[in-house]
Amino acid sequence: MSKELVFGHQNPDTDAIVAAKAFSYLENKLGADTEAVALGEPNEETKFVLDHFNEPAPRVITKAAPEVDKVMLVDHNEPQQSVSDIADVTVTHVVDHHRIAGFNTAQPLFYRAEPLGCVSTVVYKLFKENHVEIPAKLAGLMLSAIISDTLLLKSPTTTPTDVAVVKDLAKIADVDYETYGLAMLKAGTNIDSKSEKELIDADAKSFDMNGSTVRVAQINTVDLDDVFKRQAALEAAAKDENQAEGYDLFLILATNILNSDSELLVVGAPTEPVEKAFGKKLANNRLSLPGVVSRKKQVVPPLTDAFNA
Amino acid sequence: MSKELVFGHQNPDTDAIVAAKAFSYLENKLGADTEAVALGEPNEETKFVLDHFNEPAPRVITKAAPEVDKVMLVDHNEPQQSVSDIADVTVTHVVDHHRIAGFNTAQPLFYRAEPLGCVSTVVYKLFKENHVEIPAKLAGLMLSAIISDTLLLKSPTTTPTDVAVVKDLAKIADVDYETYGLAMLKAGTNIDSKSEKELIDADAKSFDMNGSTVRVAQINTVDLDDVFKRQAALEAAAKDENQAEGYDLFLILATNILNSDSELLVVGAPTEPVEKAFGKKLANNRLSLPGVVSRKKQVVPPLTDAFNA
Repeated sequence: MSKELVFGHQNPDTDAIVAAKAFSYLENKLGADTEAVALGEPNEETKFVLDHFNEPAPRVITKAAPEVDKVMLVDHNEPQQSVSDIADVTVTHVVDHHRIAGFNTAQPLFYRAEPLGCVSTVVYKLFKENHVEIPAKLAGLMLSAIISDTLLLKSPTTTPTDVAVVKDLAKIADVDYETYGLAMLKAGTNIDSKSEKELIDADAKSFDMNGSTVRVAQINTVDLDDVFKRQAALEAAAKDENQAEGYDLFLILATNILNSDSELLVVGAPTEPVEKAFGKKLANNRLSLPGVVSRKKQVVPPLTDAFNA
Repeated sequence: MSKELVFGHQNPDTDAIVAAKAFSYLENKLGADTEAVALGEPNEETKFVLDHFNEPAPRVITKAAPEVDKVMLVDHNEPQQSVSDIADVTVTHVVDHHRIAGFNTAQPLFYRAEPLGCVSTVVYKLFKENHVEIPAKLAGLMLSAIISDTLLLKSPTTTPTDVAVVKDLAKIADVDYETYGLAMLKAGTNIDSKSEKELIDADAKSFDMNGSTVRVAQINTVDLDDVFKRQAALEAAAKDENQAEGYDLFLILATNILNSDSELLVVGAPTEPVEKAFGKKLANNRLSLPGVVSRKKQVVPPLTDAFNA
């Protein structure tokens, strides 16, 4: 049997890297010859996870055909999310939890997808079905992937199966998953290591609203205090940006990814449309927006309406 | 939860009908509300199976959207093999053993495919994984589907898993699967009920070979004697056909689907190229062709070469 590569999607998150390692481990136990690789370097959160469990980062590839004829995909199936030469190799296995789109094969294959919160939950089920034991370290990695994909079991994509699997993996890994998970998600948001300018530039978009240029930046965090303890410095950075780039209004949407609440910091003018958009008065240049997580769906539309009113 | 329909492909074979019944039964045990239907009437073999186990034929549909919003597919995924309005409903589950081609969804779904000989083998695994007991009658139906798809475990698509599952299902159903399977496959070929003209017309193609018009008919059987006990009548029918249609040569390829051997009956002239093509002399107008099953790949090419030599 010739060697196969196992990998997740481009711009890998924790699940893409961990599920490849876990599925490769399982397949090798079942007699295959596979190597888990990744289509990019680990992000901050994944680095924290790999460090914590003393696990090396996978080798990074962008093409598969120079090395192998056959591959196994985890956490994706759409060709544009895969290696650039996916059309030149045979996909023998897919383990996924996404929609199926643009994925075609010439031959029958092993395809296992379930609408669960995390593909590592599906891989866990495969271990059980095949009666293969999950080593403690791997359980810790898989646990991390589920915590990452489900935001500590709080995202709307979380299923009862994900919850049960996290609890079992925590037992195997001997990890207090709530304490560990919070530290892990916090490492992923990694606010403390970034400058105010980096924070307001990383994920920001500009909008023309009835003649005003409105900049809306979003900062994800697991603790809004980590953002607002730096409020004065963030306001100064936004003010500098307004002057340098000609923005009228700079909005910083700080989102707590654990409870889906946001707090909006407002720098510049006019501020009236902002208050009108959300039916609230600014206090200390801030507005509390419980239940708001989406700039595109929950912030820009009411703001646009208020500017146009 | 709204009701869902479960069905196999158009022109259903035994596996398409049985796997829909089996997967629907399993899903209902797991809490879903489903009905197994079919996209066509049962063929001769499937009628034999349903009669044998006293199971009604499923209701036939051609569209799903007038009845339901959601469907589950077994034994196929390609849209052109499915209901004509497949694009108007949501596919929530697929259980299959074919390539994936042209199948796209908007949402994550349950997709289970394995490269096994029969999709009923995959459904059997799902019963085991979900710890749901298979009733004796259903075991008999699933056994029939695997025998049908694997030609009694002899086709090159048969895997060790199919063999093990057939043996377990035979135990549950209390069936001698070899005796029963032979009777079932025989019912499917159903030669005795057809006239000689029907037999040589059902699957026949004409070829121009260096100026000669050669007609090649193929008859599948589980016992070549069932064909050749009617040799004289078949020769007469072929001779009539040659005169009526202007064929020079009529070849009847009788194939034993159980052991992949064929016997060729030759009516008309010239016969020399036929003998040359296969390196054998005709005896009683017949030629033995062990290992030959494919008209397209194993009969027409050497015959064409011999006519052109």
